[in-house]
Parts: sequence; C-alpha cells; structure tokens
Amino acid sequence: MGPSLKDLLSAHPSVTHTLKSHDATTDLPTWISVVTNLNAIAAKTVVYKVKGASIKGDHYAAVVALFTSDVPAGVVAKTAGAKEGRVIGEDVATKLFGVARKDVTPFHLPAVTDKSALTVIVDSRLLAIPDDKTVAFRACADDTSLLIAAPRLQEFLEKAQIEFTTVEFAVAGDKPVKSEAVPKKPVEKQAKKPAAKAAADATTENKELIGLTVRKEEDFPVWYQQVLTRTEMMDYYDISGCYIIRPWAYKIWKSIQRFFGDAIEESGVDDCYFPMFVSEKALNREKDHVEGFSPEVAWVTKAGQSDLAEPIAVRPTSETVMYPYYASWIRSHRDLPLRLNQWCNVVRWEFKHPQPFLRTREFLWQEGHTAFATKEEADAEVREILELYRRVYEELLAVPVVPGVKSEKEKFAGGLYTTTVEGFIPTTGRAIQGATSHCLGQNFSKMFEILIENEAKERVNVWQNSWGLTTRTIGVMVMIHGDDKGLVLPPRVASIQAVVIPVGITAKTTQEERKALAAKADELVKILHKGGIRAKSDTRDNYTPGWKYNHWELKGVPVRLEIGPKDLANNSTRAVVRHNGTSQNISLATLVPDLTTLLDTIQSSMFAKAKQQRDAQTVRLETWDKFVESLNNKCLVLAPWCERVVCEDAVKENSARPDPANTEEVDDKAPSMGAKTLCIPFTQPEDGVKPGVTKCFACEEKAKSYTLWGRSY
Amino acid sequence: MGPSLKDLLSAHPSVTHTLKSHDATTDLPTWISVVTNLNAIAAKTVVYKVKGASIKGDHYAAVVALFTSDVPAGVVAKTAGAKEGRVIGEDVATKLFGVARKDVTPFHLPAVTDKSALTVIVDSRLLAIPDDKTVAFRACADDTSLLIAAPRLQEFLEKAQIEFTTVEFAVAGDKPVKSEAVPKKPVEKQAKKPAAKAAADATTENKELIGLTVRKEEDFPVWYQQVLTRTEMMDYYDISGCYIIRPWAYKIWKSIQRFFGDAIEESGVDDCYFPMFVSEKALNREKDHVEGFSPEVAWVTKAGQSDLAEPIAVRPTSETVMYPYYASWIRSHRDLPLRLNQWCNVVRWEFKHPQPFLRTREFLWQEGHTAFATKEEADAEVREILELYRRVYEELLAVPVVPGVKSEKEKFAGGLYTTTVEGFIPTTGRAIQGATSHCLGQNFSKMFEILIENEAKERVNVWQNSWGLTTRTIGVMVMIHGDDKGLVLPPRVASIQAVVIPVGITAKTTQEERKALAAKADELVKILHKGGIRAKSDTRDNYTPGWKYNHWELKGVPVRLEIGPKDLANNSTRAVVRHNGTSQNISLATLVPDLTTLLDTIQSSMFAKAKQQRDAQTVRLETWDKFVESLNNKCLVLAPWCERVVCEDAVKENSARPDPANTEEVDDKAPSMGAKTLCIPFTQPEDGVKPGVTKCFACEEKAKSYTLWGRSY
Repeated sequence: MGPSLKDLLSAHPSVTHTLKSHDATTDLPTWISVVTNLNAIAAKTVVYKVKGASIKGDHYAAVVALFTSDVPAGVVAKTAGAKEGRVIGEDVATKLFGVARKDVTPFHLPAVTDKSALTVIVDSRLLAIPDDKTVAFRACADDTSLLIAAPRLQEFLEKAQIEFTTVEFAVAGDKPVKSEAVPKKPVEKQAKKPAAKAAADATTENKELIGLTVRKEEDFPVWYQQVLTRTEMMDYYDISGCYIIRPWAYKIWKSIQRFFGDAIEESGVDDCYFPMFVSEKALNREKDHVEGFSPEVAWVTKAGQSDLAEPIAVRPTSETVMYPYYASWIRSHRDLPLRLNQWCNVVRWEFKHPQPFLRTREFLWQEGHTAFATKEEADAEVREILELYRRVYEELLAVPVVPGVKSEKEKFAGGLYTTTVEGFIPTTGRAIQGATSHCLGQNFSKMFEILIENEAKERVNVWQNSWGLTTRTIGVMVMIHGDDKGLVLPPRVASIQAVVIPVGITAKTTQEERKALAAKADELVKILHKGGIRAKSDTRDNYTPGWKYNHWELKGVPVRLEIGPKDLANNSTRAVVRHNGTSQNISLATLVPDLTTLLDTIQSSMFAKAKQQRDAQTVRLETWDKFVESLNNKCLVLAPWCERVVCEDAVKENSARPDPANTEEVDDKAPSMGAKTLCIPFTQPEDGVKPGVTKCFACEEKAKSYTLWGRSY
Repeated sequence: MGPSLKDLLSAHPSVTHTLKSHDATTDLPTWISVVTNLNAIAAKTVVYKVKGASIKGDHYAAVVALFTSDVPAGVVAKTAGAKEGRVIGEDVATKLFGVARKDVTPFHLPAVTDKSALTVIVDSRLLAIPDDKTVAFRACADDTSLLIAAPRLQEFLEKAQIEFTTVEFAVAGDKPVKSEAVPKKPVEKQAKKPAAKAAADATTENKELIGLTVRKEEDFPVWYQQVLTRTEMMDYYDISGCYIIRPWAYKIWKSIQRFFGDAIEESGVDDCYFPMFVSEKALNREKDHVEGFSPEVAWVTKAGQSDLAEPIAVRPTSETVMYPYYASWIRSHRDLPLRLNQWCNVVRWEFKHPQPFLRTREFLWQEGHTAFATKEEADAEVREILELYRRVYEELLAVPVVPGVKSEKEKFAGGLYTTTVEGFIPTTGRAIQGATSHCLGQNFSKMFEILIENEAKERVNVWQNSWGLTTRTIGVMVMIHGDDKGLVLPPRVASIQAVVIPVGITAKTTQEERKALAAKADELVKILHKGGIRAKSDTRDNYTPGWKYNHWELKGVPVRLEIGPKDLANNSTRAVVRHNGTSQNISLATLVPDLTTLLDTIQSSMFAKAKQQRDAQTVRLETWDKFVESLNNKCLVLAPWCERVVCEDAVKENSARPDPANTEEVDDKAPSMGAKTLCIPFTQPEDGVKPGVTKCFACEEKAKSYTLWGRSY
C-alpha cells in the first residue's frame, strides 16, 4: 500500500479541495447521482498501458477526464505516440500507484517516478468547467468523494511538475451507434424525462407523429429541440456543435440578408470576401483581442498527407484578417471612409454545451469593418448600424430588444466601446445578446499601422468600427414566439404567409366538387401571389384537413385560409390566425387588401405581445434587497449602477447562488447563472440618475446610470 | 570516401534517371540556369542536426526539397520532434555520407544505417511535380546533374525503405520581408521581364501610375495580375493560394448570384446551409470520389490548445457532408424531388501554381445537390441547370461557351456522367472549364443508402445530381474581354454602367461654370438611376479629365458620358464606348432610352466579338496530321473520336511535346500542355459522324462523335 490520499493531498496544501463524506455507494450509477446532488461533475482517472514500435520498455498513459467523456484506447495510444493501448490490470495499478485501479486519482500520478514512462492526458472539457463548479473523483472509498475545482486540479499538475497534453474527447453517446447510413441525432442534453427525450429524438419516420410532445413551459430545452427538428428548420450533424440549417430556417436568414444587405448598400457599404484562413502571426498581432478568441480557434495543420510548415487558423472573426490590408489600401483621407462587409462563416470551437442557432461552433454572420478619418463619423456609424439591428429584431422578427452600451467588462476584446441590442427569453428569464456594433477606436489602427495624412499633412491613425449579426437571430425568434403547437412565424419573414386548405369534404362530396375546391384553392394562391403575398395551397388527397391544420400550425405559417363548399357559395374564406387562434371571414372580393392588413396586424400584435411579456418581467430596483429574488422570478432588473468593474464582479458572485426551482442547464458563459450587466440602455428612465445623489444599488458608490442586469445566455 | 553516386544509383536499377553532363558550374546561379535550360526543376538535399529534450544521442533530419523552397531550421526541428536544428558541418557530412555537404543527394541517405537517428522530410511541392517534368540534383560534381522524375524519387525512397514525412514549405520570398504592417504582395510567378514584374508589384502608393505597363499579348500573366490588382478587383494575401475579393469583383459575383439564385428558386430549388466540417469517416465513404479529392483536403487537428480526438476535414465539396442526411430525410417518393443548394466556401489545397479566381485554395461557389425518383427527371435537371450556366456566361458575362458532355476520363469522380460549359482564352489558346452539372446516377445513393419505397412498394435507390458554379467565372471574363487599357466590363454585370465626367474646362472657365457642369453631371446620374441605369459622376476637382478617362477605362466601365459647356448648350452628351472606343452624341432628351439601347448593343457586340475570336481559333480536323500544329497555333480542335480512354491517353501523350513559342507557364493540371478532351458538344456538326464510316482522328477505331480538344487550364 502506498500513502493515503489524504497524505498525497497534504503534500500540496495550497491546492484547495474538499473530501466529502456521503452514503456508501457500491455502484457507479449511485455514485454519479450522489455527486450530482453535491452539485459536482463526476470525473475519472483511467490508466492505459500503451505499445508501439517507437516505445521502448513499459509506457503508460493516464487520462483525467469527465465521467461522460468517451476515451477510446486508440486515441489515448495515438496521443502517447503509440500504436495501441489497453487499460492496466489490478496488478499494475498496485505496482504503480499502490491502490486498486478504481481508486487511482490525479494525486496518485507522482508515484510514477520515471516521468518518461508516463504520458498524462487531460480532457479539455474538464479544464473548461467554470471556476465555480467542482469536479468529483472517487476518493479511494465508497463513501467519500474528492471535490476540486478544475483550475485547482490544473494548479496541482503544474506544481507536481506533471506535463500533460489536452485532448477534446467526444461525449459518450454523441456518435452514431446503429446504422451508419442514417446518422442518429446526437443527444446534446440530458432531458429530465426519458419519455420526452425519446420523443425529441424521434425522426420523421413516423409520419403520423406530428406536433410536439412536451409543453414549452414544462421542458423548454426539449421543446426547443422538437420545434427545430420537427418543423425541419434544423438537423443535428455528426460533428458536435455543428448543425444543418434547412430551408425552412434558411429562408428567414435570406429575409434578414435582403433587408440588412440592401440597407447597408444604400448607406455606402460595399460587400467583399476575405480568406477564411489566418496565419498565426496575423492572428496574434493584437494581444487583448487574441486573448479573447485564442482558446476557441480551430487550426488546420495538414493538407492531404502533408504537414503544413505553419498551422493556419480558421477565422473566429476577421479583424486580424483584414486590417493588414486596410493599412496598404488606406493612404490619405481621400481613401476614407472605407466601409466593407462580408457575409460568411466563422468558427469558434467552444467546448461547452452547444445549442442550435444560439451557440454553435460554426455559424453564419455578416461582419462589417469600417475606417473613418474622425471619431465623430465612427460614432455615428456605430449607432446607424445598431439601429438597423434593432429593426431586424423588432420589425422583421417581432422581437423587442433594448439598445444600449456594454459595460467595460462585457465590451469587445480590444475595442473602445461596444453597443448592443439585448433580447429576452421570458420562459427562462434569461437575456440574450442580439447583435453588437463596436467602435474599435484607434487600437487596431495603431497595431496594424493604418495611417492617413490628414488635410493638415499630419500622419494620424484612422478610427475603426466592426459590427456583426449572426444566425442566432433565428433561435431567438423561435424561443420567443413558439408555443405548445410549434413554431410561430412573424409574417415578414415567413416564407409562406398563408396556406390555403380545402375543407368541408364529407363522404357525400362528389369527385367533381373536390376538384372544384382544389382548383379554387390554387386560384386563390395565384391571386395572392399577384398581390405580393407568399401563399401555398395544400390540396393533398391523402391527408385530412385536421392533419393539415396541425402540420401548418407546427410549421408556424401565420394564416390558414379554409375554403369549403359553403365558403365557395358565399364567395368568402375563413382566415385562422396562428399566433392567437382567432378567426374571421374574408370576402374573396377583397382578399388581397384584407389579408395584407391582417398580416400587418399579426406582425404588430406579435411584437406587442412579446414586448408586453418582456416589460412584465423587467423590474426596477433601487437597492440590492430584492435583486436575487427578482432574478429567480425570471426577471431582468433595471437598477442605478456605479459602472465599476469590481462592483460588476461582486454582483455576479453574490447573485450566483443557484435557484433550486431553475431547471435550465447551466453553462460556462453564464456561470451558475450569476447576473451580469446586459447594457446601459440608451433610453434612461425619465426619473433617472440624479448625479451625486443616486447611489449604486449594489455598493456605496455614486450611480452613473440605470443599467439593465440579468442572467444571460 | 563512400561509394560513388553511380554505384548508389545502380543499386536501384528500376529507378529511371539520367546523369546529365554539362558545362562546369562553379556557382549556384549558374547551375540553376543550366538546369532550367535542361527543362528541369532544381532541387536540394539539406541535412540538419537536431536537438531537444526528447532526443537521445545524435539525431539528424534530411530535407529533400525544391531549390526555391524556404526550409527554416525551426520547422525541420519541429517535424523531427526536436526543439532546434542547424545544418550539419562538413565533418559530419563526411562521417555520415562520405561526401561533401553540397554533394549529398537522396541516394546517400541509406548510408545512415541507424534509421532511428534520421528523420527524412520531403517537400510536398516536389512530390507534386507532374510526371513528365524532372527535378535536378547536383550529382557530386560541378559538371553533372542528376535528373529524375518526382515519382521515381518517391519509388526509390520506398524501395530503400526510407520512411519520410512530407511538409509543405513556403516558397522563398513568399513572405513579407520588410514592414510587418504592410504585407508585401507575394510574387507567385516569375515574370520574364524584371521591369514589368516590378511594375506589377507596385502598390497604389504611386497614385500617378495608373493604367497597365504591359500589353496583353506580350506578357499575359503579368497583364492579368496588373488588371486584377490595379482595378482593385483582387489583392494578394499572406497565405499562398488565398486571395482577397474586393468590391469591384465581388459585385460581379453578386450579379451572378442574383440571376442564378432567382432562376433556381423559381424552378423549385431551396437554399440551405450544411456545416463546413466533415468527419474523416463520412469523407471516406465513397471510394472513387474521395480518391479524387483526398490529396487536396485541409485537416483541422487542433482547437485552442487541445488536440482533437479525430481530425476533421474542411469540405472540398459537400456530397459526403450532405448525403447521410438525405438518407434520413428521404423515405418515400412523396419526399422527392429533394432539391437543395448552398452558396458557400470550399477548400482544395492544391500544391501547384495557384492563379487568382482560376485556381485558388479557397473559393466561393454554389453547389446544388438533388435527388429524384427517376433517371429521366435527373437527366432533365442536369440539362436545365447547364442551360442556366450557359446563360450566366453568355448573357451576363458575354463569354461564349460550348455546352457538352465530358469524356469518361474527365468526368466527376464517382458520378455517372458530367456535362460542362467550356470557355476559351484566345490569348493563350487554352480552354477553361466554365461550370459543370453532374448526373451522379445511383452510385452515391447506394453508398449512403438513400432509398424510397416507390408506388409499387419496392425499395429503390434515388437518382442524384450535383452541380456547381464558382468565382472562376470572374477570372474568365477578365481574361477574355480585358485589353491593353485594362478591364472591360459587360454592361449587365458592371456595377457602374456609365460614368459622367465634366469636360471642356479651361483656364477661362469660371467657378460658376464649373459648378454648373458638376451639378449637371449629378443631375444626369439621378435621371439615369431613375431609368434603371447604374451611373456615377466623377466631379473631383483635383483630377484632370484625362486622368479620369484613364481611370475609368482601367476599371472597365462600359460607357463614359462627357458633358462640357458645348454639350450643355446643345442639350447633349458625348458617349464613348469602352470596348471599341467608338463615340456618339446622345440628346439629353432621349438619354435613358438611347443609353439603354447602347448598353444592350455593347453587351451583344462584346459577346459577338468574343465568339468570333473563339470560332476563328477553332479548327476542324479529320486526321492527326495538323493536330499538334493547330494546338501550337493556339487553336481548339474539333475532330471525330472513338471515345475510348486509351485513345485519349495516347492523344495527351503525343501532343505533350512543348511548343518552344508557348511562354505560358505549365502546371500540373495540364501537364506540359498535352491536349485533353474538353467535351463532346451537344451540337454536333451537320455533316457529323457517319456511323460505321467515320474514323477516329487519332486511331483506327470507329468514331462515335465529334469531340472538342484543346490545351486547357
């Protein structure tokens, strides 16, 4: 027997940890549930013996990983420079570490004195665990677990001089298991109810099963998955964090592109295309900026069978791609303003909890990058673009947003200041950043030496902005408007605004009457098209009207026009509105103008409804008292604030106590759901901050502004 | 002294090579020029001693590379798993190889008997040298060179059981050398005239230097570079083979997107977006297909600081990305047709001679992927799409193309048959593939198990197509229409169709008269805009009319409208046509209709001129006699052909003798400019093949069709 775990731990007194006693757990599932109740994340230490031509003598590889990570022996061997590997036997465990195989912890690793005989591999997902979460290892006993924060574990490895390689392992169960031809939808989230989860996974194979099987308020994550997949907006993909955008969603993106693209073109912005690849040198030029992005950069290191001499990054954003060329193109004030935009894909390889549209490893966006001679011009453009973003959300997607400026802590890495439009998901009570328009100031133009000779013949740096809007827009829209029947599309972005369905067909209806109804439905569609309304008829024989109602309600089409024998006789149609279920008769004589008006009304009432809900969940507070309670009640908080970073940090920490009623999964971008500033709204309350009088709601300092706070995606 | 090079070579009798005697070369430049005259590519063998913590004992790294490759010691060391490296001294060279350092060749490498002490690195650009080119090494003497084809060198390494790693080194001089802030434009091609090259490299710094310094017919490669960079269509980028598409070119791509996108949407194709990343397993599913692409696939192997468990490919095309999902979405004939399209970027990491727009490592395209129940429907769509491609070239870009079907040898890897529109660059006499529309048959649907139950309740595979059009279109258009003054844009894709320039200003012109002219120019632009004509005025004070003429001629604007005091008096303007220099007066009263007509006339006459030129350089031959001569005279050849692959191979080989007058650089896709089939045109000559009578022009077999042959990009 070697030294006890306690002894091993005491060798590193600065490494904070807890040895937690609990009921004895004789099997793994029980241990996992105990650990979960302790609010910790289960982890494991697995040791392999690896072999290969280049390996002389005995060589081992120890993997420290999240319990849910799939750790294939082949990958472990490869990482250790070997050909194959297998988990060590009990005899070897005892010899190397003096404990049973299941009792090996990272703290046992120093027992291997010949460091060249051991490769240590750490799961990158484990290292990405937020600071305020702990991971749990079995503590050499059935009734004790070792709880330690990921950074402390890393600190221990460094202090013990244990070099390690990080590897991103797949989550067990992420990969297709059965048929190779039909990729199984990876389950990225553990649903709480097995039945609901099975339903979310169901493919379109079962054509009878339409509609959703969970309620939005009951199980929001599964509801979101079902809405996206069953409306054919999106499908899962066999690389985690990447998703397929199907036509029903892509058309919404096209509407946004058309609106925003036309607006910026009108304003004098030109489209262009810069390469997706960035050299390491260019990427690293701006220090603050690269620190913000480098943990998430994907690197190309091979082409065909050849290693590249230098690794090449896939752009996470294009500041460092573009600005070296701005420096060569801009020579004098006559070359300004330079206003370029591109619609493209970018990659940010985040390690935690991807969510379709909201947080994906590859996403689509537009990025504008502009340069001006003066700060005034740059400031004006920042607001011009933000106003267009507000219009995309409010006028196209019927999603209310709060325009404002970000705090110092939340602004764009390397920029001067960031403006934002902030959305809100009432179901979870969480805010979501809609789009950002940054003034970069002269920071990048100094780094990249973008200089002009001004009219006074002086060499001065240009002022720069960058601004971007992503496919996240689509996810926000779905979350806000969708209901228990499925998607609800605002008319302005719906690719089908009205679906015409023949109804009132009975056993007595003759074949001729059926044909007449179908013909009428097609005729109405033609009339609507001419009137500028996107319409479609559903005259399929093999589906009942009821099935069709469900189908098009699920797909979120704003208006259903029913046309039956009676309607035909009255020269009218019954219009049923998706978002509120109301219905009305419309004379066919005035179909186009009446339906146009109806669609406008729907658009504005969807916006009004969402705004009302957002406002109902926004409270104004003057003091700290009810702050956490309000957050727990799924509210945003508007409160007077001193605008200091230390105060924001403190608020975040003090509001991070989890609400037991909050079932939404926590992720690293919103650690344990501490509140952060969303923005300092441009529109301040009329009875706003009294300078020198109003105090910060969270500390003793003087308040500078009313700031919007919330838990956030 | 070790064995002589001759002895070393004789140990591998099957490895074909030549020891070529020549004049003594005492310095490297002389040796290079001798080698170049021998039509060979200079290569080198450099040996490093490498060191690092993990290296026990002496370790060496031998690099076999093109002479022009930059081989940094750091990269060599890293590849060998070491920390640092330096070139070996003479003593070590003698000890290891028995020769002087400069005399080491790859054939000396077996002298190192301890294989674990030597890492061999081969330059991937060297391996990419086409089969019919040779590389030259110094053959241990000043007056002898060893000439060997790259595949033979590889064969030797394999036979001698020398394991090697390939690395893609940068070309010396490719990287910025001076200021880091202003990237130097990499020179990707050695221009023949130093003066012209310097001019091509000139940046926009020298604002006075507008227009081109070389003639299109005299130095086509430099002319092409100058046109692209000086019109601000494109800029070079610090990663070889990647380019920046600037607004002046991107707007042309937008015109094409608008035309083609609207047409396919009208036809029932839906836009979507699939991830850029492909798992290795998915990529390798279809064998023929992956063989066609795998040497050019870029691989992501790291994210942040973590190694990925499995490398992930960047899509070279999306068949294997999409079709697993088609299998899950398509269940019955009611799910068909499935017709999806995406506009996106793809990466093909070619190792040889990139050219802006024509062959780039990342490029933009649309890719359509469709599935049908029957072959008839798939066939019809293949032709429908090809017709749209023809219209993009002929109606938008005024570029004549020949639509036809590809030979078996030239068809898409893994597909059933490929249709194409083939363009032609008269200046070089080379054909260029414009766009392709493939019928994939049932090959992919079998691999990916895309099955439907047809109406007879049988499980059958679907029929698939894929089709793509790239930014290459822009390069073809530039090459065909451009002239010694610069770019010439066809009106339909010109973002400015007419530029209005005030003229006739003399020393006597009053400030008031100047202002009146400028105001009139702006007024005309407004009238033109209302009339649907894209116009712009150039009323800048600090440039002369002559400078402006040159500027807008360089940029290729179709029509210049001059407006001077006399024109004002006559209520007319002088219209000067860019592509043929003609001019005419147009009354301002009828400006919009007259200019509209003029623009239409320009569009059709540009097309007619290009077609005339193409036809003048297309000869019909019945026999082999004048085939090579015709190619050397920069012609395409239409000839009766047996359609057999062996015959096509033979034609390629027999026509590959280089024409000394042909100065265009040779590359691997057109090895030494042997002719290949371009297509079997859909429109056959009226007096075409007489079945059973007409013989193949190249062999004794019966001809099946008249086929178009040529040297090709």
